[in-house]
Amino acid sequence: MTIRHNYLENITLKEAEKKYFSHLIRSGFCSSSETVSSVDANGRILKNAVYAKICSPHYNACAMDGVAVKAEKTYTASEHSPVTLKPGDYMVADTGDPLPESCDAVIMVENLIDMGGGCFEIISAVRPWQNVRQIGEDICMGDMIAPSGTALSPSLCGALLAGGVTSVDVIKKPVAAVIPTGDEIVMPTDDPAKGEIIEFNSTVFKGMLQTLGAEVRVYPIVKDKKELISAAVKKAVDECDIVLISAGSSAGRDDYTSEIIASLGTVCFHGIAVKPGKPAVLGEIDSKPVVGLPGYPVSAIVIMEQIVKKLIALYYGIPSDGGAVIKGTLSKRVVSSLKYTEFIRVQLGRIDGKISVSPLPGGAGIISSFTKADGILEVDRNLEGIEAGEQVDVRLLKPLDEIENTLIVTGSHDPLIDEIADILKKENAPFRVCSSHVGSMGAVHAVKDGLAHMGGIHLLDAETGEYNNSFVKKYFPDDTAVIKKGVGRIQGLMVKKGNPLNIRSFADIRGLKYVNRQRGAGTRILCDYLMKKHGIAPDDIEGYYNEEFTHTAVAALIAAGNADAGLGIYSAAKMYGLDFIPLCTEKYEFLISKKHENGPMVQAFLRVLSGEKMRARLEEMGGYTVYE
Amino acid sequence: MTIRHNYLENITLKEAEKKYFSHLIRSGFCSSSETVSSVDANGRILKNAVYAKICSPHYNACAMDGVAVKAEKTYTASEHSPVTLKPGDYMVADTGDPLPESCDAVIMVENLIDMGGGCFEIISAVRPWQNVRQIGEDICMGDMIAPSGTALSPSLCGALLAGGVTSVDVIKKPVAAVIPTGDEIVMPTDDPAKGEIIEFNSTVFKGMLQTLGAEVRVYPIVKDKKELISAAVKKAVDECDIVLISAGSSAGRDDYTSEIIASLGTVCFHGIAVKPGKPAVLGEIDSKPVVGLPGYPVSAIVIMEQIVKKLIALYYGIPSDGGAVIKGTLSKRVVSSLKYTEFIRVQLGRIDGKISVSPLPGGAGIISSFTKADGILEVDRNLEGIEAGEQVDVRLLKPLDEIENTLIVTGSHDPLIDEIADILKKENAPFRVCSSHVGSMGAVHAVKDGLAHMGGIHLLDAETGEYNNSFVKKYFPDDTAVIKKGVGRIQGLMVKKGNPLNIRSFADIRGLKYVNRQRGAGTRILCDYLMKKHGIAPDDIEGYYNEEFTHTAVAALIAAGNADAGLGIYSAAKMYGLDFIPLCTEKYEFLISKKHENGPMVQAFLRVLSGEKMRARLEEMGGYTVYE
Repeated sequence: MTIRHNYLENITLKEAEKKYFSHLIRSGFCSSSETVSSVDANGRILKNAVYAKICSPHYNACAMDGVAVKAEKTYTASEHSPVTLKPGDYMVADTGDPLPESCDAVIMVENLIDMGGGCFEIISAVRPWQNVRQIGEDICMGDMIAPSGTALSPSLCGALLAGGVTSVDVIKKPVAAVIPTGDEIVMPTDDPAKGEIIEFNSTVFKGMLQTLGAEVRVYPIVKDKKELISAAVKKAVDECDIVLISAGSSAGRDDYTSEIIASLGTVCFHGIAVKPGKPAVLGEIDSKPVVGLPGYPVSAIVIMEQIVKKLIALYYGIPSDGGAVIKGTLSKRVVSSLKYTEFIRVQLGRIDGKISVSPLPGGAGIISSFTKADGILEVDRNLEGIEAGEQVDVRLLKPLDEIENTLIVTGSHDPLIDEIADILKKENAPFRVCSSHVGSMGAVHAVKDGLAHMGGIHLLDAETGEYNNSFVKKYFPDDTAVIKKGVGRIQGLMVKKGNPLNIRSFADIRGLKYVNRQRGAGTRILCDYLMKKHGIAPDDIEGYYNEEFTHTAVAALIAAGNADAGLGIYSAAKMYGLDFIPLCTEKYEFLISKKHENGPMVQAFLRVLSGEKMRARLEEMGGYTVYE
Repeated sequence: MTIRHNYLENITLKEAEKKYFSHLIRSGFCSSSETVSSVDANGRILKNAVYAKICSPHYNACAMDGVAVKAEKTYTASEHSPVTLKPGDYMVADTGDPLPESCDAVIMVENLIDMGGGCFEIISAVRPWQNVRQIGEDICMGDMIAPSGTALSPSLCGALLAGGVTSVDVIKKPVAAVIPTGDEIVMPTDDPAKGEIIEFNSTVFKGMLQTLGAEVRVYPIVKDKKELISAAVKKAVDECDIVLISAGSSAGRDDYTSEIIASLGTVCFHGIAVKPGKPAVLGEIDSKPVVGLPGYPVSAIVIMEQIVKKLIALYYGIPSDGGAVIKGTLSKRVVSSLKYTEFIRVQLGRIDGKISVSPLPGGAGIISSFTKADGILEVDRNLEGIEAGEQVDVRLLKPLDEIENTLIVTGSHDPLIDEIADILKKENAPFRVCSSHVGSMGAVHAVKDGLAHMGGIHLLDAETGEYNNSFVKKYFPDDTAVIKKGVGRIQGLMVKKGNPLNIRSFADIRGLKYVNRQRGAGTRILCDYLMKKHGIAPDDIEGYYNEEFTHTAVAALIAAGNADAGLGIYSAAKMYGLDFIPLCTEKYEFLISKKHENGPMVQAFLRVLSGEKMRARLEEMGGYTVYE
């Protein structure tokens, strides 16, 4: 085995972007334009300013249905002395008809009193040009309808047509190539073999690129052979405007991206001081940007957002849309690297007039942190971290009003929260449920600090054997939170199917590989209680410090054989086909801030919780008792 | 001629929406679904909640390049007493490889010291599962990936694939029919005949509908014949899910929409208390919504936004995206009707920490008010108006960050402002120029009230014959604004080509049809000055009170023969091929708030104003003098 050490550079993102883009411009990277019909130009970017060719209206038009007259004929009309218009004094006019040359006003049909014989009486005068849309009322010939670089909106397309501009020169959409590479990656499937990694990065990039206004060509997966990747890159450079190579960019044995780009063109940078995203390659072949994206989805997405998005704005010659930034209060401390600028994904919600900012679990492989992300918190490389409670700037990934209408549920997670969220969506609720898995004590802190509306708790009081009440009394002495009845859940030991190790009770975990829950989780508290009861110390248990955040994660590890046992709820064991040794029924309840207790979102959540649909779903999941 | 009076109802928008949508639901209006590949599902709306079928990773995967080991073999390693790994103690591992059964950790290649002969030394231990992505680290089988009604983002599509979900049931896009009707409307052209109205509403609707997630079929224009429109509607109802009939909806001779819908189905409402938009028809045929949209574009757009947009959200079963609402300060008084809810289009910009809200000129035919609109100010039917300086809520039509980066130029308009805006866009300036035409005195007030950064002025002091300085001294005694050199502009009388009335000087306007500028405009002030000089009273001039807002509007009316003469700048006369009697050269300068004088946006604007590109454009336009 040959081990290579390719040390990457560590340039800052800002500097990399600046120098890379300068290089691209100097190499000749630029857009082309095409002519499209204004009827189909919605969303396209104008190449040049567009001027109206004709006025709109382009003639004096009657603005109402009625009769066209010479205004001065009506000047003496009043209630006391009406004026009679005889045939010849007027001309019938429909909305939109050209104003007859001899007329200069229109009397509305509603103001005509029919006297018969083609005569009409009026009791008020009209001014010149009254009820007439004069030529150019909307657009004047020669006026600039929109400047260069404008993204055409539907109404701008209408304005173009109104101004006689039937076709426009727009920037041609850039074609972006995505080349997935790797020996182990496979096309999407629901049954991958061990060692096969489902290739989904290209799907994520495709959606992002299309949203940015690019056309996308996803090439077939290329194996990790230098000649094969090189050939694919050459083909893509020929056929497209921008080339993105997925994976193979870290400093490892299969890292050909950098070499290939260098052999066909120029590598500007390999390695950027961002986390995640470090091992990106920024290059150029034949004046076209060629970017090597890291294999880990979140790393790649950061590079897509911080570099590729701006590349496309550069192509279009428009400012890069940074996205709106809002101020919020950090709900949980974040630690960050001094070496890198970090992009931390966060969830957001409005509560008590503040925006609550909750960091999502990190890890470059975790696509779910991106699916839940409402915003990005950028932490400069010079900061070691930010404390909870501090004000931060967050760049929005979602529209503000979605974030405004959010029920923040922070605490112990149970799949029933997801089910309630689903039922609410089916009922077309005007808000979304945003749930964070931080454990029962996390609920206590979040509600206390005003950073969540409510949260799930199942906190066992070791002394009384009771759930929740004593904790709430202790942490909310001023009575600012209430507990709403939730459900009973059967907790127990999850073990491999068939229980090969013949585990009968909690005491049997001695000598087994255990997988635990995180500190502050109700299940962890239960574990510690049971261990104390059975006289088991943490060091007696292999894996006591292996912490997972959800019941399904624990179940998954036991099913895979990573661990032999772990505490969890029955429904998770059932889902993974594990055997289950029930130990107790605990109360899983909801801690709710009194301030928000009667708000429409909390009320809707509670209503669904105790409704029929939920009852049916809980029965299906198993292990739940619904309290009356 | 038969004159019909069809009195419309006057139901409120809220009530109309509520009852109409109930009727549609009861009639059976609902969506269909279809199965699509998750690879192509970006932007689609989920029919049902989706659960992961497999874990991701779906096996224990090596997270680094290096060697896989049993962690306990490394426990004693330290700098002082390194541990040597011999062949058999480890297995070579690449990122993504399955962790061998016998191993439970990975040592990074960077931490291996090659001793030769296949032996490596390490100086620190690894913990179990270190550098391993355990099964389910990202997604666990059975976890809900997204609930019903979720709009799939690119990363959600990636999560679906990672979770083994290769296809999803999504809501089928609704197909919306747009039927343009009218005897006078024609397909887009740059040379319409008098009386022909360019049909562009369908283009506006198409763009709006596509943005809302509908497919659109625009039908050929149908003449105003009842049988023809009826046949077109029947066909569209058969082929599509939603039908929009454009024009013919007011209570006039050609109003067949209401009758036709009533004969084929049900008319729920004809006439809504909104302004603009009143004569809309809300109906249903065969369980499908059939909406009669008013002919005036802005009226139609209001109905599109207030009803049709929500109709599509109803179809999808998702909450209607109202759009973000921000608070701002009204820069100009608005008057509103007591009978109707009014939707006033406004421009927005951030200045001095406030959002400045500037109403755009109204008029239902004015598409340009929609092209410039940044937001909508909804004025309840119970309000008569809102005063300048009051705080208002504005619903955003554009992203907030676009509005944040706005240079607000309010005052006397000159086409050179548009040209500067265009040059700035070509230079990729990170801000947009938002210009309002309110006349020179409007600039003084806006800058004084902190509602604009700058504005164009050309205010003639009747006593001194000087421009601008005395006004600025008078209105800014505390020196809070400065004047930046602009350009000289030749002002004069614009007259019909060939000067058929032989106009020689300003005094000759007696007895002519005149078209004036609005009060507060520098050109109006010049007019009043000249009239006083020549002893001409307002009543001596027909059309003195006919006010237009721009030079091109004045020019257009003279070119059309609506008026014989009007004051304006040379470039406008040149554009319309008018004859021009020069009267004076005035100073068109920029009044700038001192507070913003040195800001990057103002500086960029001024730089372009005095640059070479601008000089070239001014020469082309004609009548300008560039001051050094």
